[in-house]
Amino acid sequence: MSKGAEIGVRRTGCRIDASRLVARLDELAQVGPIEGGGSCRLALTDADRDGRDLVVTWMKDLSLQVSIDAVGNVIGLWNVGTGAPVMTGSHIDTVRTGGRYDGNLGVLAGLEVIETLMRAGVEPPRPLAVAFFTNEEGARFQPDMLGSLVYVGGMSVEEAHDVVAIDGARLADELIRIGYLGPATCPATAPHAFVELHIEQGPILEAEGIRFGAVEGVQGISWQEVTIKGQSNHAGTTPMNLRHDPAFVAAAIAVRLRDLALRFGGNQVCTVGKIDLQPNLINVVPKSATLTLDIRNTDEELLRRAEAEVTAYLAELAEAEGVEITTRTLARFEPVDFDPRVIELVKTVISDHGHTVRRLPSGAGHDAQMLARICPTAMIFTQSHLGISHNPAEYTSAEDLAASTDVLLDVMWSLAHTEFTADSAGGIS
Amino acid sequence: MSKGAEIGVRRTGCRIDASRLVARLDELAQVGPIEGGGSCRLALTDADRDGRDLVVTWMKDLSLQVSIDAVGNVIGLWNVGTGAPVMTGSHIDTVRTGGRYDGNLGVLAGLEVIETLMRAGVEPPRPLAVAFFTNEEGARFQPDMLGSLVYVGGMSVEEAHDVVAIDGARLADELIRIGYLGPATCPATAPHAFVELHIEQGPILEAEGIRFGAVEGVQGISWQEVTIKGQSNHAGTTPMNLRHDPAFVAAAIAVRLRDLALRFGGNQVCTVGKIDLQPNLINVVPKSATLTLDIRNTDEELLRRAEAEVTAYLAELAEAEGVEITTRTLARFEPVDFDPRVIELVKTVISDHGHTVRRLPSGAGHDAQMLARICPTAMIFTQSHLGISHNPAEYTSAEDLAASTDVLLDVMWSLAHTEFTADSAGGIS
Repeated sequence: MSKGAEIGVRRTGCRIDASRLVARLDELAQVGPIEGGGSCRLALTDADRDGRDLVVTWMKDLSLQVSIDAVGNVIGLWNVGTGAPVMTGSHIDTVRTGGRYDGNLGVLAGLEVIETLMRAGVEPPRPLAVAFFTNEEGARFQPDMLGSLVYVGGMSVEEAHDVVAIDGARLADELIRIGYLGPATCPATAPHAFVELHIEQGPILEAEGIRFGAVEGVQGISWQEVTIKGQSNHAGTTPMNLRHDPAFVAAAIAVRLRDLALRFGGNQVCTVGKIDLQPNLINVVPKSATLTLDIRNTDEELLRRAEAEVTAYLAELAEAEGVEITTRTLARFEPVDFDPRVIELVKTVISDHGHTVRRLPSGAGHDAQMLARICPTAMIFTQSHLGISHNPAEYTSAEDLAASTDVLLDVMWSLAHTEFTADSAGGIS
Repeated sequence: MSKGAEIGVRRTGCRIDASRLVARLDELAQVGPIEGGGSCRLALTDADRDGRDLVVTWMKDLSLQVSIDAVGNVIGLWNVGTGAPVMTGSHIDTVRTGGRYDGNLGVLAGLEVIETLMRAGVEPPRPLAVAFFTNEEGARFQPDMLGSLVYVGGMSVEEAHDVVAIDGARLADELIRIGYLGPATCPATAPHAFVELHIEQGPILEAEGIRFGAVEGVQGISWQEVTIKGQSNHAGTTPMNLRHDPAFVAAAIAVRLRDLALRFGGNQVCTVGKIDLQPNLINVVPKSATLTLDIRNTDEELLRRAEAEVTAYLAELAEAEGVEITTRTLARFEPVDFDPRVIELVKTVISDHGHTVRRLPSGAGHDAQMLARICPTAMIFTQSHLGISHNPAEYTSAEDLAASTDVLLDVMWSLAHTEFTADSAGGIS
């Protein structure tokens, strides 16, 4: 069994105010509004500044100590008790076609937890903090999760400041322009623990009829771009045996990748989301094809095995079809494992609240995976209808928003009462 | 053996003037010149008019009777002997990135044959004619081969006049504008026979080291557009078993189509030249895919069998993958068989001239396939280097241009001495 059982579950008996939480989500969604009820607040744009200002106002209304660091991460601290804070949080930047919940829920649920405890007159033995991190989405600046990466020391402030946006703006200049270049230094002091509430952004919980997820970690990601150069020819006059057809090769790769995913099973997912043929005409065997391979697994060893199989297959195809195949790595992240004690705590609290729960990996990246480098960390997932995200149609019911925030509250409360020791650390046994 | 052997081969002993032929090809290529030595003379544009004017001047220099019909087809007639003319010809319109030989060779070789005979003082027993037909390429007006189609009565003049170009111009208006709306009526009187010299536009002859081809007919063509609607999802968070992935389905179709072509063998060719995914992003399972299927065979029965197999496979995939698949027919032409007597004559003349020859089908459409509806018809193919066509890099050696025109001369000469009878007609026995 997991050593996570070592954290004792403590319950406050408090329940959060669902209508206050939903009202704040609604109000934030109206900053940078887009058709369909979503938002566009690309990192460090005017819309992002307006969203930040709104959330900072709410933090100050609760008399939290607000600190802003050198890359614009904002921490609201309820400075009670002693020791490092139990931190929660997420992000409020969005993709261009953002929904109402991705990121926002994790931040506003944290505010809601603190306000609920304050109003109940219940003080934790250590500080609680709610954070929103800069540029989680990576839709304007690369890499994604930049703010939390710098927060934990994975990138220097100087390097981050020089990052240039897709629109040509420099990150430091944009921080200054919107008033969010703060005095707090990075890397920051490690929190006592970190837990992030997020919508699943996938269909598993809903499809399986399970209410909440205890997130075990984040999948490793391998992104490759494959370029195939063949021989362009007339589709009518070129016999099959004289062809060197990049479109066929691209299709064969996509079919093989799906076969690989099914054979590997488990958490293995593979996607070909992008294919471009040149010249892309009905009656011309293309001269070239470019496609992308998105391969993810929670197990680094399996991820490497999948990559090796793809590499071997590409060589085989190049030889058999007389085409030239080149690849370029677009991204490569190893899987992140969350703290087994915190995962188990999340699972237990969900069960104690009377909800169904399963452990599952996150297929998407989250700030929590950066925080996991410096403190015991896990995440809570609540259902996303049909798995839709990065889209105004993103939807989670008000009941689930409230019940998952109640879970967050008792998870944070339990963590505030836990002393982690070297002894109790370690992997799942 | 073929009844084609019934046509006696007659040789003039004349040889065409290679330098004169090449000089005319060069001069015509400089009308509507594009980078790389090719030409852009989209049908009925100013450049096409300039090309027409040049060729008509050459016809008049030879004192040919020039007639222009209601869709701008131009016939140069050497009105000697008696009876219907032996006709040759092709087209001088081009695609946007046209080469120097496609179409042009067939027209200028016809002029060269007539000039050679005239200069040698040798008169055939019936008239010879050289034609260029309007809008063979179909790059500006649809359908392609429009001029020859109207010439043989496959489309009415009225319908043709109302065809609208990709740039919005009406065909009849463009004919008037460039001065090529002529008085000759369509459908025209049938020629005695028709033979067209054309570059192969494919790689078979060169790949097999065979100099010339006796063209048996034109492949039937089935063009379909397939649209697949699935479920767009996050590539990281959506397990394989919950996907309805149009990109995978498109790839599976392309792989199956290639498998079909190899299984059918013979002249079967299949091509997926165009694939478009939506939204076409690395980390998104697409919501839809559109791809085109180009299926060709010289045998209508096999073409239908291929179409039926594809239809069944699409239904199977739609069911298995939970996607919606719809198809749209973009073009459907039955195969055309040329006259076995004329095919055999072409083959015999090529052999008699000391060249290697093979029978082969044409994978591309040609005006000859329209003329085949009204008179005994076949074609001569000369090599295209690497099969490249519709491209300034299109290349056939001067030696091959000359030797194939010599073949055309003796084929026309032999046809002029042949009386076709009902008895001698018929298929290959």
